Amino acid sequence: MERLTAFRQLMVAENLDGFIVTARANRRYLSGFTGSSGVLVISRKEAILLTDFRYLDQAAEQVKDYGFQVKKHRPELWETVAAEVRNCCAGGRARWGFESDHLVEKNYRILNEQLDCCCVLVPTEGLVSPLRRKKTQAELAAIRKAVEITDQAWARLLPELKPGRTEKEIAALFEFFQRESGAEGTSFPTIIASGPRSALPHAEPTDRRIEAGDLLTLDGGARYNGYCSDFTRTVVVGATPTTQQQALYDLVLKAQETVLAQMRPGMTGKEVDALAREIIAKAGYGDRFGHGLGHSLGLEIHEAPRLALTDETVLEPGVVYTVEPGIYLTGWGGIRIEDVVVVTTEGIENLTASPKRLII
Amino acid sequence: MERLTAFRQLMVAENLDGFIVTARANRRYLSGFTGSSGVLVISRKEAILLTDFRYLDQAAEQVKDYGFQVKKHRPELWETVAAEVRNCCAGGRARWGFESDHLVEKNYRILNEQLDCCCVLVPTEGLVSPLRRKKTQAELAAIRKAVEITDQAWARLLPELKPGRTEKEIAALFEFFQRESGAEGTSFPTIIASGPRSALPHAEPTDRRIEAGDLLTLDGGARYNGYCSDFTRTVVVGATPTTQQQALYDLVLKAQETVLAQMRPGMTGKEVDALAREIIAKAGYGDRFGHGLGHSLGLEIHEAPRLALTDETVLEPGVVYTVEPGIYLTGWGGIRIEDVVVVTTEGIENLTASPKRLII
Repeated sequence: MERLTAFRQLMVAENLDGFIVTARANRRYLSGFTGSSGVLVISRKEAILLTDFRYLDQAAEQVKDYGFQVKKHRPELWETVAAEVRNCCAGGRARWGFESDHLVEKNYRILNEQLDCCCVLVPTEGLVSPLRRKKTQAELAAIRKAVEITDQAWARLLPELKPGRTEKEIAALFEFFQRESGAEGTSFPTIIASGPRSALPHAEPTDRRIEAGDLLTLDGGARYNGYCSDFTRTVVVGATPTTQQQALYDLVLKAQETVLAQMRPGMTGKEVDALAREIIAKAGYGDRFGHGLGHSLGLEIHEAPRLALTDETVLEPGVVYTVEPGIYLTGWGGIRIEDVVVVTTEGIENLTASPKRLII
Repeated sequence: MERLTAFRQLMVAENLDGFIVTARANRRYLSGFTGSSGVLVISRKEAILLTDFRYLDQAAEQVKDYGFQVKKHRPELWETVAAEVRNCCAGGRARWGFESDHLVEKNYRILNEQLDCCCVLVPTEGLVSPLRRKKTQAELAAIRKAVEITDQAWARLLPELKPGRTEKEIAALFEFFQRESGAEGTSFPTIIASGPRSALPHAEPTDRRIEAGDLLTLDGGARYNGYCSDFTRTVVVGATPTTQQQALYDLVLKAQETVLAQMRPGMTGKEVDALAREIIAKAGYGDRFGHGLGHSLGLEIHEAPRLALTDETVLEPGVVYTVEPGIYLTGWGGIRIEDVVVVTTEGIENLTASPKRLII
């Protein structure tokens, strides 16, 4: 019930009489329901989860402590949503919020037509996410566990990283090790990029066989109790690193270590991003670090706020971030190193424990 | 280029001067681009993929044969989309289509504001999907391979299904076996539901340990070259089935076998659904078969058309469907059996080869 109560306070502050939740992570956070399909209809008095046949039993069990009631929707989901909203509106023109960055135009149009009588639909963005930003102890415990699962999988994977293996085989092993350590699954599709392919920051694993001397980047994560881990290491397989491999690796590592040593509450996301970016830019690779330094995570792998060029959000204790600088040279390869940290009252605690050796 | 040409013909038929593609599977189908983020801007002359830094190299390689050019978008993706659309509009008020069941209200609003000068935005639904319905030989080969991978994983999993194992462990093994057979990953989160939990048609695997005599339902699939398989089997673990388990299993199997024997081109999705539904309803379980009989699949795990109460689509050769009747009794358990079939000129070919024994 606490989350519902806190959310209703936000609703009231925004002068909203009700709210329609469609984003999956927000639905789960507010109602406890883990299924893939459903809509929350929240007025100042009612809190309803509309879902379909497949999920009725499971949903009834899951929403118990969250203050929601479960209703089965008719085949036309959005007509049912509109009907429930109308039930909540007792005269007058009510203001109902919705997630404008999630509700698709078609369903918005249906709602708008059906509620024209009694409601104004108010586009909102990020109304639920501030509640999700600071993690509770239970949420942190789930993230810690997810990170630990990934660390364990990496430790088991290291001796398996040998020339001759394919990227797909390595991804398979990594995911299996995560599962064996208790993961519900991956938090996103595992990235394995070897040789020149490591210059692709988001490469899908292929049948390419690892060759001695290849750079290999693994970017993967586990899900535990719905919460995500996120992890990247880059290694050189089966050979001594070249001077250039070592030099660029040391540069990325220096950028990351500087951030880990200096980031603390009170700084903005932008300032933290700059700590890494300045080091990489000074070495001449500013234009080869083309993504943000990091992002928050939780029920979703990418959550606000970010550590990025334009993020003005001030770091607060209890917020979890990735720290993942990288350098990518087309045709040559790329290097990225990523840990998950939680902001403390003084600085950060690094949840990721895996070593950061370039050679394996 | 063929797909782009075919799509432009649909655009012209709808009297559209251009189209904005945001749905991932449509983006991949039309442009060949497999990344997680990007928008297609297609006019009668231009075909542009807008994506971000991370994907530029990969995208350039992937779109080559599809007739697209790749451009990096500015941080404000939707302002860039609007600018590209404006570039394509040489005077007059152009009609641009968009995917109303995919474009979110916020981005629709941005486009609408920025294109007010020169464009009418036309909501469309399912304009690309008819192109994707009949599979080419290359697509069928990918689906066959995905189905074969799942069959192989199931064969390896059967001897591992023993009392004492947890649902999560079984999911881990199944996914690993799929990966070892060449899967890029799962086509959706693996469902493992044992004992009374098998009454939940979409149960996530838990730490529950299998007990002798449990019904166990596995619903999972692989992805190969982007294409999906979908597979369900129900077994009784470590004991002789009870009379009720056997009777309900036989009923579901009879419903499925009847469909497999009788479905053929020319029937509607509704008629095929009825073949199974009548058998189950006649035995008194009509209200315990609460989902459709099946769905098409391809780049997405659920594609139109469906085999369902309301689907009037006529079956055509080359279209792929799941056939998955089920019965679910809360507190007792559930049974579902699912194969993937492709419609032929005479009937269907069943791509799934796994046996359908209740006992293992």
